[in-house]
Amino acid sequence: MAESWVIMVTAQTPTNIAVIKYWGKRDEKLILPVNDSISVTLDPAHLCTTTTVAVSPSFAQDRMWLNGKEISLSGGRYQNCLREIRARACDVEDKERGIKISKKDWEKLHVHIASYNNFPTAAGLASSAAGFACLVFALAKLMNAKEDNSELSAIARQGSGSACRSLFGGFVKWKMGKVEDGSDSLAVQVVDEKHWDDLVIIIAVVSSRQKETSSTTGMRETVETSLLLQHRAKEIVPKRIVQMEESIKNRNFASFAHLTCADSNQFHAVCMDTCPPIFYMNDTSHRIISCVEKWNRSVGTPQVAYTFDAGPNAVLIAHNRKAAAQLLQKLLFYFPPNSDTELNSYVLGDKSILKDAGIEDLKDVEALPPPPEIKDAPRYKGDVSYFICTRPGRGPVLLSDESQALLSPETGLPK
Amino acid sequence: MAESWVIMVTAQTPTNIAVIKYWGKRDEKLILPVNDSISVTLDPAHLCTTTTVAVSPSFAQDRMWLNGKEISLSGGRYQNCLREIRARACDVEDKERGIKISKKDWEKLHVHIASYNNFPTAAGLASSAAGFACLVFALAKLMNAKEDNSELSAIARQGSGSACRSLFGGFVKWKMGKVEDGSDSLAVQVVDEKHWDDLVIIIAVVSSRQKETSSTTGMRETVETSLLLQHRAKEIVPKRIVQMEESIKNRNFASFAHLTCADSNQFHAVCMDTCPPIFYMNDTSHRIISCVEKWNRSVGTPQVAYTFDAGPNAVLIAHNRKAAAQLLQKLLFYFPPNSDTELNSYVLGDKSILKDAGIEDLKDVEALPPPPEIKDAPRYKGDVSYFICTRPGRGPVLLSDESQALLSPETGLPK
Repeated sequence: MAESWVIMVTAQTPTNIAVIKYWGKRDEKLILPVNDSISVTLDPAHLCTTTTVAVSPSFAQDRMWLNGKEISLSGGRYQNCLREIRARACDVEDKERGIKISKKDWEKLHVHIASYNNFPTAAGLASSAAGFACLVFALAKLMNAKEDNSELSAIARQGSGSACRSLFGGFVKWKMGKVEDGSDSLAVQVVDEKHWDDLVIIIAVVSSRQKETSSTTGMRETVETSLLLQHRAKEIVPKRIVQMEESIKNRNFASFAHLTCADSNQFHAVCMDTCPPIFYMNDTSHRIISCVEKWNRSVGTPQVAYTFDAGPNAVLIAHNRKAAAQLLQKLLFYFPPNSDTELNSYVLGDKSILKDAGIEDLKDVEALPPPPEIKDAPRYKGDVSYFICTRPGRGPVLLSDESQALLSPETGLPK
Repeated sequence: MAESWVIMVTAQTPTNIAVIKYWGKRDEKLILPVNDSISVTLDPAHLCTTTTVAVSPSFAQDRMWLNGKEISLSGGRYQNCLREIRARACDVEDKERGIKISKKDWEKLHVHIASYNNFPTAAGLASSAAGFACLVFALAKLMNAKEDNSELSAIARQGSGSACRSLFGGFVKWKMGKVEDGSDSLAVQVVDEKHWDDLVIIIAVVSSRQKETSSTTGMRETVETSLLLQHRAKEIVPKRIVQMEESIKNRNFASFAHLTCADSNQFHAVCMDTCPPIFYMNDTSHRIISCVEKWNRSVGTPQVAYTFDAGPNAVLIAHNRKAAAQLLQKLLFYFPPNSDTELNSYVLGDKSILKDAGIEDLKDVEALPPPPEIKDAPRYKGDVSYFICTRPGRGPVLLSDESQALLSPETGLPK
């Protein structure tokens, strides 16, 4: 066995956004939630993590690079994932190259990990969900672990709770589970991404000066101090989970939108009921909600659902392309870009929605009429950093094209 | 009995701010709440309503002027108050002038009402609470009704729920009551205004472009749609009421502040849990909360409590004058006035707090150091319209000095 070989696997994993929210852990160490949650997986074409994992007898220690920069793997969350996958590693053989790794070798071999997000980090777009899902998925493939994606989700969960929902495409349920070791707290697919493919998702990345409470800290404080959270988790969410699954299976957008908006608002309500209170939404978030609510009411049936995670960004789910194009017109009316911003860098992702909206350049944005459902509509230039147009998407995949690997096949170091 | 006489009464009634919130009616018509609430009465020197009520056989109909402008009395809320007080009217005699009104005459006699707020209207400062309390109190005196202030509070309640708490000074509890006709849903004094006279109250009137949901509409929608409200009303508030009464009686500021802040936040949480969600606080409100929370935590014991009603204005209750002066320094650091505003019209009410804070003019405001508990503190010029410094105050009084009457003793019309 030559000491110079490197074996690599590259995977791509989507991010996800919860439509029934996860907020509050019943076990901090194992990351076990106080209620079930349901998410929609976002198209990896627009938001995903790519991770290459490599093993070589020449590696002296486990190392990781995130977006090109080396980071420490000493944190408990990374160690949990590495330990759990190593425990499930099996024999690996590359006959062509004459390499054989036996099950017990994995305990001694070190790995290199390189991870890259195709979307701006630190924009509050759940990069840790995609990141830990991708890490676990890629390591499992490298180490030939036989676990299915649900079983892997229970490992990804120990990196970042919501990561477990990124192991599948379409709509995904994270079952809170019952047993103490957390082995039944895992994700299952509700429907795949083809089931409801009319949906269009527009994300408004909202400018913010505020430093936000991390979701780990925030949910701990909510569990400790909110007098409303337990009532939400025990009495309200279980019913909503059943209703949400029904709505998704029946593609009942009115019910889906009602539940999605109500649950986002209730999550932010329990944040506000925390001591000290946590405010993730700001005035811009409130204005986006008001824009959607007024439009939905003026039409009579919901056109768009909104949901907000632990930050001010809005995730807007439109019933179909037509609703999405109208929504984009309204959003660009209220939130035109700063004058030094080009349209091309202001609306990212699936730009065909812009075309559907009849908007080709900034002059078209300037000329947009105020939404008829609102009198005296002001414009809030610069309050949104940019928009991303996307849709529900697929789960993790392996990338076989070696050119997409983030590590060099010779050195196992970042390219 | 000469047909030209006018008999008048002038009263002054304070406004109040709830520290355990009233939000949600169990009976819309009688204005019966879903839970008890507790408020502090504000010093009428800074915030009050003055109302003159007059009766004369020459009046052809009931009429009312608010801040000098005639308004309609046809609304159910005014009619409730007029009807209920008329039903309790007794004989009135002015021996000097030889005027006698017998109990049954009141059914046929008409009244003129003039009311004036000594603070800006439409600033979200609970003018309707002081207004209805003053109307009922003045009418009761005019008509020689024998009811005590608690009994009168049950009538004022039918004008505006929170008005019932303006019939007393100090700290006041509105007992939700049990009986169907609402007769036991009334206010009682917890302690008078002398019991805890160290407290200083600073109100930040926050600039806002947003049109707010009226509290009547807002609480109806919360009752109809929030899944958290009933839990709050039935399980949480009853315990808080007991704890709050204890805290007030023992002048336990730490407990008082904790309960006040938590209950304000929970009220806004159930507003957010409403469909569509109601946002009364804005980014400025959030920043004021953050300023207070960080300061309280840095000191280790609460210096200031905050509470917000159905709007973005902050009511800040400081433990004592020293804490109030420090608070004012911090507030003026974060929220200096616009350059065209004079300090004298920016800090209203009890200006001695300004003096305690060592601030004499705008240069002193400019020179304020950033609060040490916050790094990188930005300043938000113009985000607060003005501050009012005040304190807990007394209940309704009759003004015997005729020069303070708002109606002419000859014509019964506004002076």
